[in-house]
Amino acid sequence: MEMKFFNPKSVSPSEIVHMGRMYSSSFSSFRHFGVKLSPQFCSCKGSAPKVSYSNNIYLSKEAIDGGDIVAAETCVYRINGTTGASSNLLSRETRVLDAVDDQYGGVVVDPEKLPANPSAFGHILHYSLSHWKKKGKKGIWLKLPVERSDLVPAAVKEGFEYHHAERGYVMLTYWIPEGPCMLPANASHQVGVGGFVINDKYEVLVVQEKHCAPPSAGLWKIPTGFILEAEEIFTGAVREVKEETGIDTEFVEVIAFRHAHNVAFQKSDLFFICMLRPLSSQIIVDDFEIHAAKWMPLVEFVKQPLIQEDCMFKKIIDICIARLGKRYCGLSAHHLVSKFDGKPSSLYYNVTEDPNFNCIGD
Amino acid sequence: MEMKFFNPKSVSPSEIVHMGRMYSSSFSSFRHFGVKLSPQFCSCKGSAPKVSYSNNIYLSKEAIDGGDIVAAETCVYRINGTTGASSNLLSRETRVLDAVDDQYGGVVVDPEKLPANPSAFGHILHYSLSHWKKKGKKGIWLKLPVERSDLVPAAVKEGFEYHHAERGYVMLTYWIPEGPCMLPANASHQVGVGGFVINDKYEVLVVQEKHCAPPSAGLWKIPTGFILEAEEIFTGAVREVKEETGIDTEFVEVIAFRHAHNVAFQKSDLFFICMLRPLSSQIIVDDFEIHAAKWMPLVEFVKQPLIQEDCMFKKIIDICIARLGKRYCGLSAHHLVSKFDGKPSSLYYNVTEDPNFNCIGD
Repeated sequence: MEMKFFNPKSVSPSEIVHMGRMYSSSFSSFRHFGVKLSPQFCSCKGSAPKVSYSNNIYLSKEAIDGGDIVAAETCVYRINGTTGASSNLLSRETRVLDAVDDQYGGVVVDPEKLPANPSAFGHILHYSLSHWKKKGKKGIWLKLPVERSDLVPAAVKEGFEYHHAERGYVMLTYWIPEGPCMLPANASHQVGVGGFVINDKYEVLVVQEKHCAPPSAGLWKIPTGFILEAEEIFTGAVREVKEETGIDTEFVEVIAFRHAHNVAFQKSDLFFICMLRPLSSQIIVDDFEIHAAKWMPLVEFVKQPLIQEDCMFKKIIDICIARLGKRYCGLSAHHLVSKFDGKPSSLYYNVTEDPNFNCIGD
Repeated sequence: MEMKFFNPKSVSPSEIVHMGRMYSSSFSSFRHFGVKLSPQFCSCKGSAPKVSYSNNIYLSKEAIDGGDIVAAETCVYRINGTTGASSNLLSRETRVLDAVDDQYGGVVVDPEKLPANPSAFGHILHYSLSHWKKKGKKGIWLKLPVERSDLVPAAVKEGFEYHHAERGYVMLTYWIPEGPCMLPANASHQVGVGGFVINDKYEVLVVQEKHCAPPSAGLWKIPTGFILEAEEIFTGAVREVKEETGIDTEFVEVIAFRHAHNVAFQKSDLFFICMLRPLSSQIIVDDFEIHAAKWMPLVEFVKQPLIQEDCMFKKIIDICIARLGKRYCGLSAHHLVSKFDGKPSSLYYNVTEDPNFNCIGD
């Protein structure tokens, strides 16, 4: 049993490879550990990092006898070690958590090899931090799956902070060096889309929402919604219009976007207004969220007091009308892959088929 | 002591107002609880919600005697209640957590009035869920400050899931109704900026990073970085250029933006390429993150093999050159406040001083 703890090969190469895969989707961020983030054409850098195995070694004698709290605690355990589990405890107290190094002097703890017992985890984590400090490590990343939530209090007790959480896990971090924490930030934005759909009779596709805040009660508005995880902006706009009204459309351009702050969960918000070309005319209302939907003459749509009174609504509609008159050009979507990260992505820029087409004046 | 638990006024109106304030920044999101999100011109809706106090009452006799597990557990406590704390335990087991209702049939637990003891918390939470189910509540929001991380395991045990986390807290949620969870999603994007700065000698401001992934080793690139919390895109671009090179600039336009997915922490990434006008020429390199910075003739910059070989780099530079030749128009930033949420925000759209200016052809 103890051999398991003393065996330097307790993580096999195949397991390391597995861990590399396990973390691969996060490594584009992990590659920034300990350095200020500096995007290329996305906010994270190029190719996948080399994952080197952080030896699951024991602290040397001087570390154990050293004046630090870890050593002290370890000694206490040695002296007071009682019950049949004492030798096991000892071995637990004196091992370092299984982890992989990242390219930036950080350490990523293996969430699949966490000690079973929260108190043992607390001691091993304490001991590991002392080990990593001696090794000059920077950021420590501790991903605790929801089924290991019993370990959260011990991690917080050791000084870990919440970094972010998703349904299945909470990520905690510990910044070892003196000075400000240089770990990458959590996601900062939510992204919404609005679909401006106008037909050849100059009728706009509008909806009235079932659940709407007082200011927009009774307003006929364009279909809007959030984009889904990993969804394209143009896809999200087409999907929202289809869901709310049953109308099929094709994406033309991002006409404008709005940036606002301290919206949901104090995060910022990017809202993209998309011009869409209708491919069908038969409206099927989504009863769940939409009270009513119809094709409304553009003139009537613009005349709505709520729009006339609101500078932002008005400006956006002015832009859409200018676009219809080819006096405006928005940003169209172009599928491109950069060699620097090999990621398929959408580059939005300004293109027109008409070389004589003029942009709107202010 | 027990009176505290039995007193329906255990949350005073002033405390409710306080809680309203406490949650106000989140309520723009909370207003979406239980309904599919549908942004106006940001991804959350208008004005602040009315916060009504969710009575801190006890379950009625039929609820206690009812067949549900809560009642059963409560009875067990009544029968087995031992030690001096039993009456206290009893009162604890039979109270509902202090909380406020949201406008969408949800409940927001008051993080300042959580039971001191994790096991008591577990029972009260269990009991509260049963109460909220009977009341037909939808989404339950449980914000646990980092100093109450001891309550996380009990919440997870009761079926709560992680929703998101920030340094100071973890937010857990529980969706009561049958069918898919309709609670708003966590932030989905990170936002980066790049500053294309070119002077009247057609020299581009370029940097070589200290920590860069192999593909871009030796590349002279434009300064890039993440925008800060609640920072404007144009402000972020100007700040990054100043930090990395010491050059003062003014924002001209967002030239293009890139949307990529599964980048950091599996989140999506929006990267905005900004054209900036230089206001100074003296370079002061940021030694911490930048290896070197200089003004590089545009021709040399474009000739770099890494740029010539990469379709995305090349396209973006083509666009910047077109913009210099006034054959392209990007999106400029305009400060606007919409009546619908009263938020000061930036609307990015396409404007040019030159009415005869033509957009680039593809």
